[in-house]
Amino acid sequence: MNIERGAIPRLDRSGAPGRYLRNAWYVAGWADDLGEEPVARIFLEEPVALFRDEAGVAHAIGGRCPHRFAPLGHGKVIDGQLECPYHGLRFDGVGKCVFNPHEKGVVPRVGVPAYPLVELHNLLWIWMGEVSAADPALIPDFGWLADPKWEPVRGATIAEGHYELYSDNILDISHSNFVHPALKADAWTIGKRSFRTDGDTVWTEYDHLDDYLSDGINAILGTAGKKQDFWCGIRWNAPAVLLLDYRAADPGTPREDMTILPSLHAFTPETKDTTHYIWAVARDFALGNQEFNAAMKGALEHAFEHEDMPVIRDAHRLMGGQEFWSLKPIVLTGDSGGVRARRVLERLISAEEELMRAAAE
Amino acid sequence: MNIERGAIPRLDRSGAPGRYLRNAWYVAGWADDLGEEPVARIFLEEPVALFRDEAGVAHAIGGRCPHRFAPLGHGKVIDGQLECPYHGLRFDGVGKCVFNPHEKGVVPRVGVPAYPLVELHNLLWIWMGEVSAADPALIPDFGWLADPKWEPVRGATIAEGHYELYSDNILDISHSNFVHPALKADAWTIGKRSFRTDGDTVWTEYDHLDDYLSDGINAILGTAGKKQDFWCGIRWNAPAVLLLDYRAADPGTPREDMTILPSLHAFTPETKDTTHYIWAVARDFALGNQEFNAAMKGALEHAFEHEDMPVIRDAHRLMGGQEFWSLKPIVLTGDSGGVRARRVLERLISAEEELMRAAAE
Amino acid sequence: MNIERGAIPRLDRSGAPGRYLRNAWYVAGWADDLGEEPVARIFLEEPVALFRDEAGVAHAIGGRCPHRFAPLGHGKVIDGQLECPYHGLRFDGVGKCVFNPHEKGVVPRVGVPAYPLVELHNLLWIWMGEVSAADPALIPDFGWLADPKWEPVRGATIAEGHYELYSDNILDISHSNFVHPALKADAWTIGKRSFRTDGDTVWTEYDHLDDYLSDGINAILGTAGKKQDFWCGIRWNAPAVLLLDYRAADPGTPREDMTILPSLHAFTPETKDTTHYIWAVARDFALGNQEFNAAMKGALEHAFEHEDMPVIRDAHRLMGGQEFWSLKPIVLTGDSGGVRARRVLERLISAEEELMRAAAE
Repeated sequence: MNIERGAIPRLDRSGAPGRYLRNAWYVAGWADDLGEEPVARIFLEEPVALFRDEAGVAHAIGGRCPHRFAPLGHGKVIDGQLECPYHGLRFDGVGKCVFNPHEKGVVPRVGVPAYPLVELHNLLWIWMGEVSAADPALIPDFGWLADPKWEPVRGATIAEGHYELYSDNILDISHSNFVHPALKADAWTIGKRSFRTDGDTVWTEYDHLDDYLSDGINAILGTAGKKQDFWCGIRWNAPAVLLLDYRAADPGTPREDMTILPSLHAFTPETKDTTHYIWAVARDFALGNQEFNAAMKGALEHAFEHEDMPVIRDAHRLMGGQEFWSLKPIVLTGDSGGVRARRVLERLISAEEELMRAAAE
Repeated sequence: MNIERGAIPRLDRSGAPGRYLRNAWYVAGWADDLGEEPVARIFLEEPVALFRDEAGVAHAIGGRCPHRFAPLGHGKVIDGQLECPYHGLRFDGVGKCVFNPHEKGVVPRVGVPAYPLVELHNLLWIWMGEVSAADPALIPDFGWLADPKWEPVRGATIAEGHYELYSDNILDISHSNFVHPALKADAWTIGKRSFRTDGDTVWTEYDHLDDYLSDGINAILGTAGKKQDFWCGIRWNAPAVLLLDYRAADPGTPREDMTILPSLHAFTPETKDTTHYIWAVARDFALGNQEFNAAMKGALEHAFEHEDMPVIRDAHRLMGGQEFWSLKPIVLTGDSGGVRARRVLERLISAEEELMRAAAE
Repeated sequence: MNIERGAIPRLDRSGAPGRYLRNAWYVAGWADDLGEEPVARIFLEEPVALFRDEAGVAHAIGGRCPHRFAPLGHGKVIDGQLECPYHGLRFDGVGKCVFNPHEKGVVPRVGVPAYPLVELHNLLWIWMGEVSAADPALIPDFGWLADPKWEPVRGATIAEGHYELYSDNILDISHSNFVHPALKADAWTIGKRSFRTDGDTVWTEYDHLDDYLSDGINAILGTAGKKQDFWCGIRWNAPAVLLLDYRAADPGTPREDMTILPSLHAFTPETKDTTHYIWAVARDFALGNQEFNAAMKGALEHAFEHEDMPVIRDAHRLMGGQEFWSLKPIVLTGDSGGVRARRVLERLISAEEELMRAAAE
C-alpha cells in the first residue's frame, strides 16, 4: 500500500451508490506493504481496515468503529488485535470486539464485519460478498509474482475514473500508440487481434510477426533495431483483475520459448469515481539489477500513472456520471475485449442482484 | 478571529439543511480579535458580518448585502457603519441601510437582519433566534477568561465535522489515552466517572486519587514523578459550549484548594459539516511568562487541532451524512455525558420546532 | 487561450443544468492564442475542441470523442484533422470521423457536432445553437482589436460566478469606487448616468464634466492634477459581450475628439458557476511601448482578476445556487443597465425555449 496514511476521503453520497460484484476476489494491496501498521481503505464504498495479527496473518475487517465511527485502520495493533484510534476498543481478526479499556471493561457484543482475506502471490485478496462463497481457488493465477525466477517492478495508487474504464484500457492496448510514445508499435494497431470468452474469463490476443517492437520494450529487451515476432495475451477476470502476458523473440521462435514480460493490472473500485490501481511488470533476466529495476519502474510508472490515468480521468469526467452504454459509444473491433468483459460482469452482477432479491422475498 | 480574511466557503446545498437550536447563545469569536476590520462568518449556514461601531460596540448583522449579495463582512467600517465592499451601501448596527453613495443618495428601505451580540468574558456571543428571547443572563459563566488572575492561551479555527461530535469529544476525555500521547493518564479510563443533568446543563466528572498525572499536565504543573489527587468536571451548555475544570494537587488537598486549569471549548456550527472551534486553557500561576505561554499554547493547539480534529473529521466522513442514532452506535459508560447532552439538545430543538409549527398555523 | 492545458474540470451534475442562450455568438478565446496545439474547453456545460486545419482555419467541434469519451481538445492536429488522444480516431473541421488507424481502418459513421466558428477582430466567436441561424453579421463590432492604430493589453481567465453577475459588474462601473482603489472617481457615483435599450443592445452611459479622473487612468493618460471632461459608454450584447468606451479630454473638447480607451469584456459561461472571462483594453498612443504595455496590463489584470473576481465569486457563493430575482435584490438606479440586459436576455432565452417546445410538438 504505497498510499500515505492520510485522511479518509470525502465520500460523495449524492445519487445512487455504484453497482459492484460482491462475490469476487478484489486485490486489496501488496502483501508485503502491510506490515505492523494497519491500513485504512475504502473498497466498493465500504470502509475496511487491514492489519496483521501476532502470527503475521493478514485480516480485513470493517473499517468504521461501531462506537464512535473512527477509522479502525488508523489505529494500532496490540497483541494481535486492532485498537481503535479514538477510544481504544480492540477488535480481533474476525471483527469481534475483544477488549474495552474503560472502567469495568465490559466488552460490547457488537463488532464489525470480517471480510475473507487471502494472501497469495504477494497480493492481498479481499472478498466483499457472501462469506461462505469465498473460495480461494477462484483467485486467478499470478504465481510469477511470488516466484523467485521473476523480478517484478510494481506500484499502487488511487486513480480517478470508474474501474471498468481502467480494465477497458488494458483490454485494448491499441491506445499505446497514442497515449504512450515509448510503447508505440504497429503491432497494436495493424497487427492481428483476436478475442475469446472462456467461461467467465475474457482474452484479448495480439499476434504480429517480424516487425520492430516499441522503443520502451526495446530498451528492456535489448532488441533495438532487430525485428521480432510478437504475441500478447490479456486475460481478464471479474471484476477487473488482468494479466498481460507480453512475449517477443527472434523471428521463428515458438511462443513458449519467447521472452516473457508478464504484468498485473488490478483495479479495485474505491467509489464510483475512484479506483485502486495495483500493477506489476516482471522479467526473468537481469535479476537483482537495481539500476535496471529503477529505470524500468520509472518508465512504467510514468506510462500508467502519468499517461493512462489523466486521459481516463478526463474521459470519466466527460461522461458526467452517465451510464456507459447510455452514451452510445462507437464500438471498434479493438473494443471487443472490453465489451466482452463488460457483458460478463453485467451478467454476474445481475445474477447476484437476482439472488439477493429472491433471498429477500 | 484568528482565521484569515479569505473567501466565503462554497456552501453545499445538496440535501436538507442542518437542524440547529436557534434560541441559544453561540460563541462568534474572541472579542479582542474583532478590531477595526469587520469579519465575515457563516454560522448555522447563515452569513453574518461582525463589526465594531465608533464607540467600540460590537454588532452582528446579516452578512449578505441585499443589493448584489456581496459579503458585508469583507467591507469597511466608516463612521461606525459597515460599508458594503461592492457598491458602498452602508448599514448600521441593527442592519438598517443608512447611506447610499450613488447619485441622489436615496437610501433603500431594505436592510439586513440584526443578531443580538453580547461581549462577555472576552468572547462575542451571538443569538441566531428570536430577538426578544435573547437574554444575556443565559450565557454560561466563563468569568476566568476576563479575570486578570487567570492567564489564558487560546485559539480559534474551523474544524471539519458536525459540532455534536466535537462536544461529545470533550464530554468523554477518555479519548485522551488514545488520541493524545501527552495527555494519557489512568484517571481518564479507569478512574471514577459520574454524570448528571441539572436542568439543561450536563456534567461529566472524573475523580481519581493518588496517581500520576499525564506528562503534558506534569509539564505545566511541575508535578512530574509526584502522585496527585485529581478531579475534573466538564460542564456542557446547549448547543455546544463547554467548560472543562481540571484540578490536581498533592494527595489530601480539598478540591477547592487544588490547582485549577480551566478551559473553554466552544463549538459553533458553520454548516452541517464544519464547525468553528474556539478554545482557551488558563492557569493562575506563571502569569505574564511568555515562554510558558508559547510552550503551553503549542502543546494544546497540537492536541486540539492536530490530534482531535483529524480523528473527528474522519469519523464524520465515515458517517457519510447519516444521522448519528440511525447508525446505532455502541454506547459505553463514558458516553453518558455526550448522550445526555444530545438528549437535552434534541429536546430543545424539538420544542423550538414545535413552537415554530404552532406559530405558523 | 492563456489557460494551461490541464485537466477537464469536474462538472457538477447535481441540480438542473443552467439556462443559456444558444443562438448567439460567444467569445471562445483569442484567435492568436490558438496555434498548432488544439484546445479543450467547456462552454455552456458542453465540451468543445478548438483547432486549426492546414490552411490555418479555426474549427470548433464536439470535445468528447464518441468512441471512449476522451477530450479531443487534448489530441493532436495531423494533416489538418484532429486526432483523439486516446485511440487515434481523426475528425475533420465539421466533426466527421475521417480516419481510423486500427486494423482494416473502417471509419465509424458517427462523428461529433460542429459549431460555427468565426475569426474576427482577433477573437474566435462560437455559435452553440442552430447552425443555420449563425449569421456572422450579428457579431458585435470590436474592430479596434484588429486595427493597428490601437494597441491592446489583454487577458483570458476562468472566473468563478455566474456570467450574468459579470456582465452586471461592467454595466455598473460605480463599483469602482469600492472595489478598485486605483479607479475611484466621483464620476462613477455622483456623475450623470443614463441607460437605453436599442433593440437587443443595452447601453449605460456616464457623463461628467470638469473633474479629476482616477489615479489609475491619470497614470495612463498623463492627466494627474488636471480636471477633465469625461464620458463613458458601455454597450452590452447578448449574452454577455460588452464594449466599454472610456473617453476623457481637456474641458470643452467635443466627445469625438476625446482620448479613447476602448475595452472588451466578454463572458462565456463554462458552467452555471464558472465563466470564461476574456478582456482587453486598448489605447491609440505610446504604440509599441512594451514598458507601458506591461504596466498597463499589470494594473488592469490586478483590477479585473484580483479585485472584481473575488467579490463576484463570493456574491455567487452567498447566492447559494438560488435564482437571482428569487432573492429579491434591492435595485438602485445604477443597476438599470444590468436589469435591462437581464430582461433582454430573459426574453431571448424564453423565445428560444418557446421555439424549441413548438418544434418538439
